[in-house]
Amino acid sequence: MINKVRHKQPLVHNITNQVVVNFTANGLYALGAAPVMANAVEEVADMVKNADALSLNIGTLTTPQVEAMIIAGKAANEKGIPVVLDPVGVGATPFRTEAAQKILKEVDISIVRGNAGEISHLAGLDIPMKGVDTNLKGDNREVALKVVKQLGLPVIVTGKQDVITDGKRCYLIDNGVELLTKVTGAGCLLSSVVAAFLTTGDDLLEAATGAVGFYGVASEVAAEHISGPGSFQIALLDAIYQLNSDVVKDTIKLDHIIVSEKEM
Amino acid sequence: MINKVRHKQPLVHNITNQVVVNFTANGLYALGAAPVMANAVEEVADMVKNADALSLNIGTLTTPQVEAMIIAGKAANEKGIPVVLDPVGVGATPFRTEAAQKILKEVDISIVRGNAGEISHLAGLDIPMKGVDTNLKGDNREVALKVVKQLGLPVIVTGKQDVITDGKRCYLIDNGVELLTKVTGAGCLLSSVVAAFLTTGDDLLEAATGAVGFYGVASEVAAEHISGPGSFQIALLDAIYQLNSDVVKDTIKLDHIIVSEKEM
Amino acid sequence: MINKVRHKQPLVHNITNQVVVNFTANGLYALGAAPVMANAVEEVADMVKNADALSLNIGTLTTPQVEAMIIAGKAANEKGIPVVLDPVGVGATPFRTEAAQKILKEVDISIVRGNAGEISHLAGLDIPMKGVDTNLKGDNREVALKVVKQLGLPVIVTGKQDVITDGKRCYLIDNGVELLTKVTGAGCLLSSVVAAFLTTGDDLLEAATGAVGFYGVASEVAAEHISGPGSFQIALLDAIYQLNSDVVKDTIKLDHIIVSEKEM
Repeated sequence: MINKVRHKQPLVHNITNQVVVNFTANGLYALGAAPVMANAVEEVADMVKNADALSLNIGTLTTPQVEAMIIAGKAANEKGIPVVLDPVGVGATPFRTEAAQKILKEVDISIVRGNAGEISHLAGLDIPMKGVDTNLKGDNREVALKVVKQLGLPVIVTGKQDVITDGKRCYLIDNGVELLTKVTGAGCLLSSVVAAFLTTGDDLLEAATGAVGFYGVASEVAAEHISGPGSFQIALLDAIYQLNSDVVKDTIKLDHIIVSEKEM
Repeated sequence: MINKVRHKQPLVHNITNQVVVNFTANGLYALGAAPVMANAVEEVADMVKNADALSLNIGTLTTPQVEAMIIAGKAANEKGIPVVLDPVGVGATPFRTEAAQKILKEVDISIVRGNAGEISHLAGLDIPMKGVDTNLKGDNREVALKVVKQLGLPVIVTGKQDVITDGKRCYLIDNGVELLTKVTGAGCLLSSVVAAFLTTGDDLLEAATGAVGFYGVASEVAAEHISGPGSFQIALLDAIYQLNSDVVKDTIKLDHIIVSEKEM
Repeated sequence: MINKVRHKQPLVHNITNQVVVNFTANGLYALGAAPVMANAVEEVADMVKNADALSLNIGTLTTPQVEAMIIAGKAANEKGIPVVLDPVGVGATPFRTEAAQKILKEVDISIVRGNAGEISHLAGLDIPMKGVDTNLKGDNREVALKVVKQLGLPVIVTGKQDVITDGKRCYLIDNGVELLTKVTGAGCLLSSVVAAFLTTGDDLLEAATGAVGFYGVASEVAAEHISGPGSFQIALLDAIYQLNSDVVKDTIKLDHIIVSEKEM
């Protein structure tokens, strides 16, 4: 699937937080996509007209940026291109929670990507978090399925195990490395990588799974010869640039589950 | 000429987009210049008073930032310091195009730097782009000369071949590497490097050519021992820091053409 | 002391400039702290409720950001968590100077961190700067003590020698490397590292000194195998991540002085 992305060179329009805007743009270039990061209300609708996908990220929200996201999201819906929502830190403040809810209400989101805490807060669920690494595998899947039912949207819950589900099918990925949690924007970039993969024309859930698996394998390759989170961040960009589909196929740890009616 | 820049340590004031603001500041430090990135309307005029050059970049415009650029540009004109304009993505949205036109109208720009598409859009030309690498050499020179005539300003058109011209003299540079197109802000940083070189007191076109040649050679040095766009981005900063004038002289591929009256 | 920081994993809320926001977040992750970079007036007070420390940095101020800093600062005071102020470029423009004064007036700052020029401007002192490296050791200590008297606050003056003082005790640190001045945000990140160390519950001046010493040693480790400011910036993040307390103890060059009444 990475070959399709590299061949298409999709233009991914990102409205994202100022912490990760550079890393996201560089990550998309490394992937073979073309990033554009316009975020002014004055031009986002026009910019979306050129784009193949839209990635929305609420990491450092301001009121004008929420407005820009809704304008861009509606333009993307009208054009029929995929829209990914990354609800960074939702639940941390009422402003952030309300903004995320507003975006969900006004824009047709193709898929949501976040960690278990963010994703469950987004759906207004009060799922008790069991702390890092305690039964996290079970939790992520449970959270994902509950949130899909609540939001009526496919979700990607990333963590020690990544879960990609639309409530009927459920993909589980066990790639990735701990250092991803030590680089700011590692999750944000993944959301934009998902947006790029969603432009391939493949089944949405399979494309999203392809993106998450590719990214997890890239992080494992990157972690091989590094000295800490600084060199890992750079090696991750290099790995995204160089990783080919054969290595992904050989390295991906993917499970596919048909969700039973009981779980649904 | 790099020695003059390093000796002078010019203070380059940048009003630039949020994607590349960190990379631009680090690139100017590596060059031996001193960057300042103030962009608030409340202080840009005061900050320009300390500066030796001003670099304007419209990559992530907002209405207040356009205002700040015009205030800073007028202050720079009054002080008599060089002003470089980088019209990132002009033509992509009406907002961006109008902002660039407004800046050109209100501020005396010393030189404009962009790729062939941006530069021709800036001049309102409808020059057909022939796609990547198809007759691009011929195109860049043709675009540059037409734009100079239209705008009445010297321009730098970067691409596979870089063209620096004021309509009478025309410098052509054949350095640089493909990876420059895979790092966000590589072009933006060049615009600020040009601003730094314009403070040396040398002939404007020669100083701009010196900057473009230095940067192209630095990118070639950087590309020697890297694994992808991540490590290239870091190596580029190191190369800018370490590159000396002898290596530039030995490596630069420079052509100088007197534009014939027919072309003018 | 680094072990306490890594064990506590303090949440450090940063309201900082857009140039260094990514580097600061990555530096705090590397340290073992958790960064949050929210800067909207709509949510900073709520975000501070989750935080263990607040770091304020005026590097690219706007009027709303000054407001956000004051709101966040007051919330931090109410909660009783430490607040670090980094008055970047104070004195360069009236806007910046007035903003810094306003923050100092409205918020109880735990400690201020800057270079000798910034720190003396902040206190309204007209201490003549003697240029880079000329008697800088003597100057930094003199500046620091005068500023403490003027502001009534502990200060960290960084430079060739770092001075940490509350006017009674004075710590001097002679670690650090020249390349720190060639990476944008190296000082800004230190301010946030200080904020993280202030959460350990240790004596404020000792905790601040621990942070400055740790950072200076990390920069020396980072400088060992690099090719310029690009690779240094990455190596610094790696060194912050890997450096253990034994190496710090063996490498730190620390002096402790009881300020005589004459100096006070």
